[in-house]
Amino acid sequence: MTDEQAHAVELDPAECWELLASVPVGRVAWTTSAGPAVVPVNHVVDAQTVRFRTAAYAALAQKVDAERVAFEADAIDPASRTGWSVVARGRAEVRYDGGRDGAVPLPEPWAAGSRHTVVVVHVDEITGRRLQHG
Amino acid sequence: MTDEQAHAVELDPAECWELLASVPVGRVAWTTSAGPAVVPVNHVVDAQTVRFRTAAYAALAQKVDAERVAFEADAIDPASRTGWSVVARGRAEVRYDGGRDGAVPLPEPWAAGSRHTVVVVHVDEITGRRLQHG
Repeated sequence: MTDEQAHAVELDPAECWELLASVPVGRVAWTTSAGPAVVPVNHVVDAQTVRFRTAAYAALAQKVDAERVAFEADAIDPASRTGWSVVARGRAEVRYDGGRDGAVPLPEPWAAGSRHTVVVVHVDEITGRRLQHG
Repeated sequence: MTDEQAHAVELDPAECWELLASVPVGRVAWTTSAGPAVVPVNHVVDAQTVRFRTAAYAALAQKVDAERVAFEADAIDPASRTGWSVVARGRAEVRYDGGRDGAVPLPEPWAAGSRHTVVVVHVDEITGRRLQHG
């Protein structure tokens, strides 16, 4: 651990996309009548979109179609207090057909159960920060 | 990597609180006029609350007072596809006095800059899942 405080450096969109694609898991946040909700999902990045699977009956699939969502990923080392975080925001599209529109890669489902529903987030805003020393 | 799918096991609230307190960083999601927002913060857990610092001028501090927020933490191993995630939801309270109400521990600010504002999330709903094999 260090007592030295880190400085946050803004990342440009290209760096943000690269980092977002470099990790398998992120968190999607959406709005419900009972306030915001957020869950981790494994995702892939393709052509300004973030894609992940969910179950058709999940609250997520039922609520987010055509709505705005935020998708966050990070890699932060608590010991050195360095790392990065990226947030992508945009409109979600729920595809019950599995989202197979050509050669687009889809994340494998990790948890057991039927997860043929794919959420495609059409990102229109992406921001990120790197936390570093010196 | 394994192709075996994991099973999600629901965690009870006591387990959720223990796990939430076991990691230094989580992500807070809130609602804005432009849709949901989410950022990582370092947090502490105390008496059914989650606490973290922010800058008084941050969008977060200006938007969340008395509003519902969701706070997520996880520890997921992509290689084994196991781990856990916890989501706590409740009303946020923004304290511009630094939130020093007695002996309550506060997270140290990691990033440089003035961060005397503390957000206290009064959690009324906590859920979690463990992803495991077998």
